[in-house]
Amino acid sequence: MPKLTHFEAGRPSMVDISDKTPTPRTAIAEGFVLLTPTAAAALEGNPKGNPLSVAELAGIMGAKKTAELIPLCHPLLLSKVEVHCEQLADCVRIQATVKTRESTGVEMEALTAVSLAALTVYDMLKASSKALEISGIRLLHKSGGKSGDYQAEPKI
Amino acid sequence: MPKLTHFEAGRPSMVDISDKTPTPRTAIAEGFVLLTPTAAAALEGNPKGNPLSVAELAGIMGAKKTAELIPLCHPLLLSKVEVHCEQLADCVRIQATVKTRESTGVEMEALTAVSLAALTVYDMLKASSKALEISGIRLLHKSGGKSGDYQAEPKI
Amino acid sequence: MPKLTHFEAGRPSMVDISDKTPTPRTAIAEGFVLLTPTAAAALEGNPKGNPLSVAELAGIMGAKKTAELIPLCHPLLLSKVEVHCEQLADCVRIQATVKTRESTGVEMEALTAVSLAALTVYDMLKASSKALEISGIRLLHKSGGKSGDYQAEPKI
Amino acid sequence: MPKLTHFEAGRPSMVDISDKTPTPRTAIAEGFVLLTPTAAAALEGNPKGNPLSVAELAGIMGAKKTAELIPLCHPLLLSKVEVHCEQLADCVRIQATVKTRESTGVEMEALTAVSLAALTVYDMLKASSKALEISGIRLLHKSGGKSGDYQAEPKI
Amino acid sequence: MPKLTHFEAGRPSMVDISDKTPTPRTAIAEGFVLLTPTAAAALEGNPKGNPLSVAELAGIMGAKKTAELIPLCHPLLLSKVEVHCEQLADCVRIQATVKTRESTGVEMEALTAVSLAALTVYDMLKASSKALEISGIRLLHKSGGKSGDYQAEPKI
Amino acid sequence: MPKLTHFEAGRPSMVDISDKTPTPRTAIAEGFVLLTPTAAAALEGNPKGNPLSVAELAGIMGAKKTAELIPLCHPLLLSKVEVHCEQLADCVRIQATVKTRESTGVEMEALTAVSLAALTVYDMLKASSKALEISGIRLLHKSGGKSGDYQAEPKI
Repeated sequence: MPKLTHFEAGRPSMVDISDKTPTPRTAIAEGFVLLTPTAAAALEGNPKGNPLSVAELAGIMGAKKTAELIPLCHPLLLSKVEVHCEQLADCVRIQATVKTRESTGVEMEALTAVSLAALTVYDMLKASSKALEISGIRLLHKSGGKSGDYQAEPKI
Repeated sequence: MPKLTHFEAGRPSMVDISDKTPTPRTAIAEGFVLLTPTAAAALEGNPKGNPLSVAELAGIMGAKKTAELIPLCHPLLLSKVEVHCEQLADCVRIQATVKTRESTGVEMEALTAVSLAALTVYDMLKASSKALEISGIRLLHKSGGKSGDYQAEPKI
Repeated sequence: MPKLTHFEAGRPSMVDISDKTPTPRTAIAEGFVLLTPTAAAALEGNPKGNPLSVAELAGIMGAKKTAELIPLCHPLLLSKVEVHCEQLADCVRIQATVKTRESTGVEMEALTAVSLAALTVYDMLKASSKALEISGIRLLHKSGGKSGDYQAEPKI
Repeated sequence: MPKLTHFEAGRPSMVDISDKTPTPRTAIAEGFVLLTPTAAAALEGNPKGNPLSVAELAGIMGAKKTAELIPLCHPLLLSKVEVHCEQLADCVRIQATVKTRESTGVEMEALTAVSLAALTVYDMLKASSKALEISGIRLLHKSGGKSGDYQAEPKI
Repeated sequence: MPKLTHFEAGRPSMVDISDKTPTPRTAIAEGFVLLTPTAAAALEGNPKGNPLSVAELAGIMGAKKTAELIPLCHPLLLSKVEVHCEQLADCVRIQATVKTRESTGVEMEALTAVSLAALTVYDMLKASSKALEISGIRLLHKSGGKSGDYQAEPKI
Repeated sequence: MPKLTHFEAGRPSMVDISDKTPTPRTAIAEGFVLLTPTAAAALEGNPKGNPLSVAELAGIMGAKKTAELIPLCHPLLLSKVEVHCEQLADCVRIQATVKTRESTGVEMEALTAVSLAALTVYDMLKASSKALEISGIRLLHKSGGKSGDYQAEPKI
C-alpha cells in the first residue's frame, strides 16, 4: 500500500532530503485556460501589447515562490524557468520548463508556474466572460533524480 | 468588441478602482484533482492526520497572497476565507469561499485559493503517482459589486 | 464549553468578520530574552551602533507580516507600530504597541512583533552563548472592539 | 570580551560565510504555550480536526521564511523541517527539528519554527482566554559546523 | 529645526496615522536608466517581445510590496498603479502613478515602482554593458492629504 | 549586434545557468540620495538613534529579496551582504557589497540593496523636503565568474 511521504506518525512533515545527491533535474508541465468566444475575441483583438507575456512573467515569478506557497515543498535554487503561453482555437495553452541542480525534483515548481500563469490569463480575461475554466494541469516530463525519467501519455 | 481592462494603450495596468464604492462581496470557486487508483488509495489509507487539511490551509494562506501572485490584482483585505477539500470516488473536490468589503471583487482570491489547495494535494500525492491532473477550476458564484450576481451553469 | 473559533465543522477557517464594525483598536504585548552573563556583557560592550535597534526594526517589519505568518489571521492595515527593546540586568525586555482602525483586533500583530524582535536579539547574541531563552511573551493590554478592554495582571 | 558578530565598525552586517565549508547540520529547539484551564478545555474538546496540526504547518512554513524575518540571517536551503506540537497538562509543548547541508547553522530556523507555531496555537486559543503566555523558547541541540555539538542542560 | 518623523525618543517608529482622515491621494514619480550606445542598440534591436513591458510589470508588482521593503512605511491598499517605460535617445525614462484612498500618501509607492522598474531595465541590459546608471528618481507630483499638493520644479 | 539574454524567441525568460560553474563572486554598487539643506539639517540634527542604520538594514534585507523583485533574476544564496550609508555635504552616499558562491553574479543584489537603502533614506527625510532625489546608482566593482572582473571608471 502506498504511503504519503509528507506524513510521519500522522503529522505533516517536510521529507528529509539531507542524504540525497544533487543532480541536474528538469520538469515540464502544461495547462489550459478554456476560453469562451467573447474572451477569445478580446484576447485576439487586443490592439497593442502582449497580454500573454504578462502571464508568462507571472508564471516565472510564481515558480520562484513555490516553497512559500506549497507548505511541504523544499526551498530550491532554480537554474532555469521558462513559461510559454499560446492562444489556440478555444483555449490558451501554457507550458512551463524548470531546471535545478539540487537534491529534489522541480515538478511542483513547473506546475506552480503553469497554475499562476493560468490564473493571470484568467484575471486579464475575466471582465469579458465569467465562464472561463482552468483545466488539464499536469506533468508532461521529468528527468533526473533517483526515480528516473517520466514521460506523460499523450492525450487523444 | 470586448476590451482587455488590464491594458491601457498597449501597456499592462492595474485598473483604477478609486471611484468604486466598497460593498460586501463574495466569490465561490471550485476545482478538482483527478486521482489515479494508487493515489486514491494512498490518500484514503493515510493512517492518522488529515492530508486534506494541509491543502485547506495552503488555500487559505494562498488567498491572502493573491495580489502578490497575480500581477495586476489589487491588494484587498479579506474578511473571510474558507476552503473545503473532499475526497470523492476518483478525485478530490476543492471549494473556496472568499469575502471582502472592498471596492473590487474576490473572484481571483477564490480561484487562487482553489489552485494552491489543488497544488498542495498534488504535492502530497505525487510520490504515489505522476499521472495526477488538476482540472475544472472555475467560478461558481459571485455576489456584490456593480456587475451584479453570477451563478455558474451546473455541469452535466 | 468554549469552542475554537478558527474551526468550523472540524476544518480550519478564517473567522468571518464581514459584519463587524471597524473601530480604533490597540494592543500592547511584552516578552523577554533571558541573557547569560557573557551575552549580557557582549551586548553592553558593543562599542558603536545599537543592536537593539536592529531588533526593534525586525519587530516592526514582522508586525506587518502577521497575516502571512499566522495561517488564520486576517490581513489588516496597521496605523501604528512601535517596538521598544531595553537591556535590563539579566534580560532584554521587549514591548510592542500596534494600532489599527479595522474590524478585528491586533493582539497577534503585537505578539508577532515581540516574537520577531526577540528572535533577532537572540540571533545577534547567539555567538556569545547558546543558553539564551525567549520567555514571557504575553498580551499586556488591549482596547477597542466588542469584547472590550483587557489589562493583564501584573506579575509578582 | 565577546563581540557581536553581526556588527562591523558599529554597523549591522551579515557575517561573511564565503569561506566556510558546507557540512550537514541539525538544530532542535523547543518552546511552550502556557494554557489557562479554559483554553486547555477548548483545545481538548475540539470535536473534529486537529488544531495543533495547523500550528505545526505554520512552524514548517515559518522556518522557510527565517532569512526574510531575521534581518541578518543568511538565506539557506533546508533539507528537512519537522514540528511537533503536543498538549500537556497545562501547556502545549512545541519541538522543531531543522536540517541543512549549508555553510552555517540552522538554530534560528528551528527557533523561528517554534515561535511561529507557538503564535499560531495562541491565535487559535485567544478567543477562550487572553492570559496565555509563550515561554521557554530555547535551543535543545545542535550538531555540525566548526563550533561543534551542543546539548542543552535539562531543566529541573 | 525639522525633525525626523520616523524617530521617537531615538527609536525608529512607524508614524501614528490612526487619527488621519482617509482621502483620495495620488503620487507620480519619475526616474531614468542611463544607457551606453551598446545597451541602447540592444534594447532597440530586440526583434520580438517588449522588454520594457517586463520592467513595467516589475514596477507595478513592486509598488504593492512597498510596506514590506521600506521598514517604516504603512501598509496601504492601492486603487491604481501604472508604470510607463519609454526609450529615449540615451536613456529609458520611467514614470509611475499610484493612487489610494487611505490615510497616508503614496509617494514611497510611486518611487518604489520607479526604482524596481529601473532595476529590471538594468537587469535585462547588463549583459550588454556594465556602465549603466540609474538616476534622477524623484517625486513629480502629489495630491491629496493634509500637506496639500506638490508639483516638482521642471529640470532645465 | 548585442542581444537581450533575457529574451528567447520574443519571450521573457530566465537565463539557463544549469551548466555554469559555482565560483566565489563579489559585487559592489553605490548610489546617492541628494539632500536639500533642510533635509540635511534634519538628518544631522536627529538627537538620538541612527537613521542611516535603518537604511542599511533595509538594504541588507532587500538584497535577500532580489529574485522576488526582479522578474528574471535567479534565486541565489548570499554569503555576505554589507551596506554602508554615510552623510556627506549635500547627500547620503550608499555602498553595498554582496558575495555568493553560486553560478551567477550578484550585481543585481548589490544594486537592489543600494536602491532600497536609498528609498529608506528618502522615506525618513520626506517630511522635511519633497525635492530629494535618488541618483548615481551604478556598479563599482565585480569579480568572479566567466566574464571576469570589472572596475568602474571613477567619476570626475
